[in-house]
Amino acid sequence: MWNSPRIGVLGGGQLGRMLMESANRHNIQMNILDVENAPAKQISAHDNHVVGSFNDHESVHKLAEISDILTTEIEHVNTFALEEVASEVQVEPSWRAIRIIQNKFEQKNYLSKHRIPMGNYSEVVDNTPEQLANIGQLLGYPFMLKSKTLAYDGRGNYPVKSEADIPAALEILKNRPLYAEKWVYFKKELAVMVVKTKDNVLSYPTVETIGEDSICKLVYAPARGVSGVVDEKAQELARNAVSAFEGKGVFGVEMFLCEDDSVLLCEIASRVHNSGHYTIEGCGLSQFDSHIRAILDLPIPPRSLELRQPSIMLNIVGGATPDAHLKVAELALSIPNTSIHMYSKGAGRPGRKMGHLTVTASTMHEAETIIQPLINLVDDIRAQRSDITVKPQMSGSCSSKPTPTLGVVMGSDSDLKTLIPGLKLLRDYFGIEPAVDITSAHRTPTYMAEYASTAASRGIKVIIAAAGGAAHLPGMVAAHTALPVIGVPVKGSALDGVDSLYSIVQMPRGMWLQLGALRRELRSDLNSNINY
Amino acid sequence: MWNSPRIGVLGGGQLGRMLMESANRHNIQMNILDVENAPAKQISAHDNHVVGSFNDHESVHKLAEISDILTTEIEHVNTFALEEVASEVQVEPSWRAIRIIQNKFEQKNYLSKHRIPMGNYSEVVDNTPEQLANIGQLLGYPFMLKSKTLAYDGRGNYPVKSEADIPAALEILKNRPLYAEKWVYFKKELAVMVVKTKDNVLSYPTVETIGEDSICKLVYAPARGVSGVVDEKAQELARNAVSAFEGKGVFGVEMFLCEDDSVLLCEIASRVHNSGHYTIEGCGLSQFDSHIRAILDLPIPPRSLELRQPSIMLNIVGGATPDAHLKVAELALSIPNTSIHMYSKGAGRPGRKMGHLTVTASTMHEAETIIQPLINLVDDIRAQRSDITVKPQMSGSCSSKPTPTLGVVMGSDSDLKTLIPGLKLLRDYFGIEPAVDITSAHRTPTYMAEYASTAASRGIKVIIAAAGGAAHLPGMVAAHTALPVIGVPVKGSALDGVDSLYSIVQMPRGMWLQLGALRRELRSDLNSNINY
Repeated sequence: MWNSPRIGVLGGGQLGRMLMESANRHNIQMNILDVENAPAKQISAHDNHVVGSFNDHESVHKLAEISDILTTEIEHVNTFALEEVASEVQVEPSWRAIRIIQNKFEQKNYLSKHRIPMGNYSEVVDNTPEQLANIGQLLGYPFMLKSKTLAYDGRGNYPVKSEADIPAALEILKNRPLYAEKWVYFKKELAVMVVKTKDNVLSYPTVETIGEDSICKLVYAPARGVSGVVDEKAQELARNAVSAFEGKGVFGVEMFLCEDDSVLLCEIASRVHNSGHYTIEGCGLSQFDSHIRAILDLPIPPRSLELRQPSIMLNIVGGATPDAHLKVAELALSIPNTSIHMYSKGAGRPGRKMGHLTVTASTMHEAETIIQPLINLVDDIRAQRSDITVKPQMSGSCSSKPTPTLGVVMGSDSDLKTLIPGLKLLRDYFGIEPAVDITSAHRTPTYMAEYASTAASRGIKVIIAAAGGAAHLPGMVAAHTALPVIGVPVKGSALDGVDSLYSIVQMPRGMWLQLGALRRELRSDLNSNINY
Repeated sequence: MWNSPRIGVLGGGQLGRMLMESANRHNIQMNILDVENAPAKQISAHDNHVVGSFNDHESVHKLAEISDILTTEIEHVNTFALEEVASEVQVEPSWRAIRIIQNKFEQKNYLSKHRIPMGNYSEVVDNTPEQLANIGQLLGYPFMLKSKTLAYDGRGNYPVKSEADIPAALEILKNRPLYAEKWVYFKKELAVMVVKTKDNVLSYPTVETIGEDSICKLVYAPARGVSGVVDEKAQELARNAVSAFEGKGVFGVEMFLCEDDSVLLCEIASRVHNSGHYTIEGCGLSQFDSHIRAILDLPIPPRSLELRQPSIMLNIVGGATPDAHLKVAELALSIPNTSIHMYSKGAGRPGRKMGHLTVTASTMHEAETIIQPLINLVDDIRAQRSDITVKPQMSGSCSSKPTPTLGVVMGSDSDLKTLIPGLKLLRDYFGIEPAVDITSAHRTPTYMAEYASTAASRGIKVIIAAAGGAAHLPGMVAAHTALPVIGVPVKGSALDGVDSLYSIVQMPRGMWLQLGALRRELRSDLNSNINY
């Protein structure tokens, strides 16, 4: 920074605006190419912005002349103009990456070649009912008909549930270049923000995204009820996918988590992304900070991408009237730990992203409780909109395997042999498949606290906790949740298990009722009033 | 917000700039009165800023004409101009409050009347050696000679160590209106940001501030080694002091913590303050958010003022060359969880505030470890400055009572009777005064974890933990610290104490060495590979 290269950005919407916030704090000059008074330009008073379109050759050249490095905040830019200026200025990520990614069919072909796991898909060569019927035969129904280009936030997509839907789908999409995707029965949509630097590929944690009306509605960071193994797998897939492309910067990777815990790529964005907004409050560095640092070859400490606290992001979208969405922002003022980001786009239009808010808390359960009134209001405002034809919400609705309602934890894998007869009984006799985990009160106290305090939000109703020796696990789990906890003493090499039995049964009186209410409040400073 | 009143700000330095960041996110129009291209103006592109001085009548009137509410980011404004425009626009806080506060002697008189505890002080009526010698007799040496007005960041202050210093002190300050303050032997400097709303007075947590060369160097949030009782006392003093003034907005209150744990007011600022910068990353709402909301009568959820994570703020001040300070920002790029705020003030001047950075972590100890290399660099850069005459660092050097090195915790006050003979032995036989606290592993698990994980940073070397029954406290404390923990079993009403003895001695093997390293890493998902 400081004597830093000047950054030129194609696009000045909310993503450009949040990039600008970061550039401002780093004192880096950022020139925006977009219409007069675009959101990003409003918070940057210098004279080197360009009025024009990011699709216009001349404007891109003009931006290149006054910048040292170009980047984008939207995929739908003129990559041919970027290719032309690439000899004069650095372009990050490369125009080649953007060109491949902006065509979703080419993106899939390219990532297939790089062995990134994804659902089946097929090109639609002629936009005719006959060809679509053939594709229905090939991929099965339902399938998703998609425009190869200029598709975003659900525009350019049509779910074809059966052959009967084909005429309607073609009616809407016939003039576009199309392809079809096999329907993926996912249990969750996941996303990972990836940072590609000059010599490294880093990732933020795996988050859970919830869409509505084909746009992002909510982001939960970390993804709820997702194991460490899946988190790692999703981050690895995302890093591998991004590694396939040329250039530097932040990429958003959307994925499906399937029934069998396999992870499939959904799509990639060659820019900062809505599913990464939580990073502003949630992480040591925001995705916007990371993008700027990555393209300028400035350091990015990997630890700064870790989550500081569980966070939930909720989009504020336009409603039936130009100011309907402001009700959400107004309510958000009264909700604790809620950061408000309004994009200064003027009057709201139904479905338009007007702002977002992020709730942080020390546990996901607490964040969920805090944000609920805001989600309710968003739902009410959506119900007033006349533009929404309530579409079949097929995706994600086919989850057949029930979420576990019983959690079984043990302090060490050596306890497992004691539990196996019981686990068999649960499965074979009661038909219950519990979620089984290892966490130690002593060796992993923080993870143990997180496990227990988020259990209710994962749908767990009862916890069975097994431990040997000093056996603190059942009691400490109970200290962090209001769920009933059943302790199982495990016999150790000495004392015949009486030690763990005592540790479990000799809990303080009234313990179970006092939880939560007393947890934080009972603090006392005795130093000044002990008489002895 | 939105159709919100337009805010006019007198002053557009770094405080105005950070207010603007908040106004931008709330989409509130904020008009700045300051020189062309002042830091705050750079991040706001509209045409309604005023070029001029916040001391100039005409400029203040001009700002008032295009604004609905005026506020300030600096005390040294023209309160007579504010008084004149107060009939046309709202002025927050009131010009009366600012007028009293900007004269430090009047401020002290006013707060004395409101029974706010503070050190003795005396007016200097004639700036003569004789009068100062009389004051030396009255207050004792050393005393602090201070300018009543236009004093900030140590300018206008002179420590008079003995009668011999009087000529030098007068030489420097003779043309100013002066008063003298009795020297306060404090063990820490504390600060609290207070938010005065239309019907409430709220406070942020008590922080510890460390000054150098008479300006703020470091802020630790929360204040280290300060009990909950002192934290509450400081917050209450700060709220009481601010309650005495008219108007709304954020006030910074600086205090001294004395040897006997009494708290005295040092001074008050009628604006956002350097000691509140940590709130940007540290709290749900920043001091800048709170100021804007307070003056616009928008809601401020009290919980949003609580600390999200321990945070340390370090100022980046100008060094010997115009870009010396940039080394700090450059190093900060490589330090995890470090947020950088550069103020875009151009070339650095020795001692000028050019930016700040904030480190957050899950424990204060971790934050201290992370920030240390940055403090070292700041110290190196300071050592290069030729403008510093190394002043006697008298304040705070007179702490006589040692910090406790032994922490004694118990699960409940009923355990105290078991401990009293041991506490007496420690005091009478070994001369050790331990810090004694109550925290329960079950009822206050979060506080217990905080107590244990921050103990080392408070100077504690050994912890004695006593508990009865299931007796999880010693083991859980040990799980959160690498300090040695001595467990004391307490006999309950049944089992003759053998239950607590077993809970304490039957800890997992190797426990003490594995701590920390294993704490977070040991996470495992068993669901997919259990065979039974």
